[in-house]
Amino acid sequence: MEIKVVRNILEANEVIASQNSALFAEKGVYVVNLMGSPGAGKTTLLEHTVEHLKDTRKIAVIEGDIETSRDAERIAGHAIPTVQINTGGACHLDGNMVRSGLKGLDLDQIDLLIVENVGNLVCPAEFQIGEHHKVMIISVTEGDDKPLKYPLMFQVSSVLLVNKIDLLPYLDFDMKQFHSDALKVNPKLEIIPISCTTGEGLDAWYRWLEERSS
Amino acid sequence: MEIKVVRNILEANEVIASQNSALFAEKGVYVVNLMGSPGAGKTTLLEHTVEHLKDTRKIAVIEGDIETSRDAERIAGHAIPTVQINTGGACHLDGNMVRSGLKGLDLDQIDLLIVENVGNLVCPAEFQIGEHHKVMIISVTEGDDKPLKYPLMFQVSSVLLVNKIDLLPYLDFDMKQFHSDALKVNPKLEIIPISCTTGEGLDAWYRWLEERSS
Repeated sequence: MEIKVVRNILEANEVIASQNSALFAEKGVYVVNLMGSPGAGKTTLLEHTVEHLKDTRKIAVIEGDIETSRDAERIAGHAIPTVQINTGGACHLDGNMVRSGLKGLDLDQIDLLIVENVGNLVCPAEFQIGEHHKVMIISVTEGDDKPLKYPLMFQVSSVLLVNKIDLLPYLDFDMKQFHSDALKVNPKLEIIPISCTTGEGLDAWYRWLEERSS
Repeated sequence: MEIKVVRNILEANEVIASQNSALFAEKGVYVVNLMGSPGAGKTTLLEHTVEHLKDTRKIAVIEGDIETSRDAERIAGHAIPTVQINTGGACHLDGNMVRSGLKGLDLDQIDLLIVENVGNLVCPAEFQIGEHHKVMIISVTEGDDKPLKYPLMFQVSSVLLVNKIDLLPYLDFDMKQFHSDALKVNPKLEIIPISCTTGEGLDAWYRWLEERSS
């Protein structure tokens, strides 16, 4: 019974996500769905990314949060179009929420749209929003056992940014095991270790994004 | 439409949670529902807690994870009854899953049952499992902006353990602001800063638990 309900919700979402996807294709907008746990560093990564790319790409951001417009305010401070979606309790963005958010953007003036999902390592992975790629960010402070314990998000993502590597000296985190487990779950996953504090690794991420949004 | 579905699921869950609660009362078992993000330190906290209390309390643990039995194996290594629930994709434990897990335990032989929920700062807060208290653990690496961005879990919890304070020197985390925001969301919240690495603050947590499970 419950499974049926969930399936219906997911199927209804797929329809709207496909419509979003068609709209993005028509307008020539490349769209990334950025997902990760609370505090993995999504908004900080976005601030760096926007600052690096805003002279060569017309960027916009949709911020998904349960409450507050704090993240949108941080991004809007970089002088790019930003929309905040408050899910009001919902633990993920879905196609319909993103569609509503698009009303606040002029897609003809945008090359690259980054959607920051609600901080959650589980539910966002289940809901398409019409994106080209899903990008996952995880902090090494979350522990090296996450790929096998939360496999879905690793499976559906194209890129995995492993953040806060500047903290590795203070943690018991086995990077080799983590890589191996992540690739076991998704052999095609591109893994980029980064630190938003020191800037290490960010160039590889920018290159990945630039190649796809040109 | 979708809201109605969610309400029905939540109402059905409340019924089962009440039945669990009655069973715990009948058997004299004190039950804590431990919630927090992936990597906040739930299982490590449990290992310390079990080690500290197992001579004075008859403890059991139910581990909730999407996949794997890694956490249950870690806890079972401390020689106490442990049950692993794999939710198979679901992002939280609910009353029915816990009821199923109880079949693996002899409640007559248990004073204190700690249920470790799926790592998720959002959904577990919505589902009663029949517990006496909800306990939340957050890592300072998750950032000081979480109380206002993810208010529900702060609202429904009785205790907030603020973990990994040994990493504070390497982070930009405003503990005063964090406390203030957490208390704004839930003025009754008891906040205990801890480090499972150095042991700092754990005595206050053990006392809290001992007072309630005696």
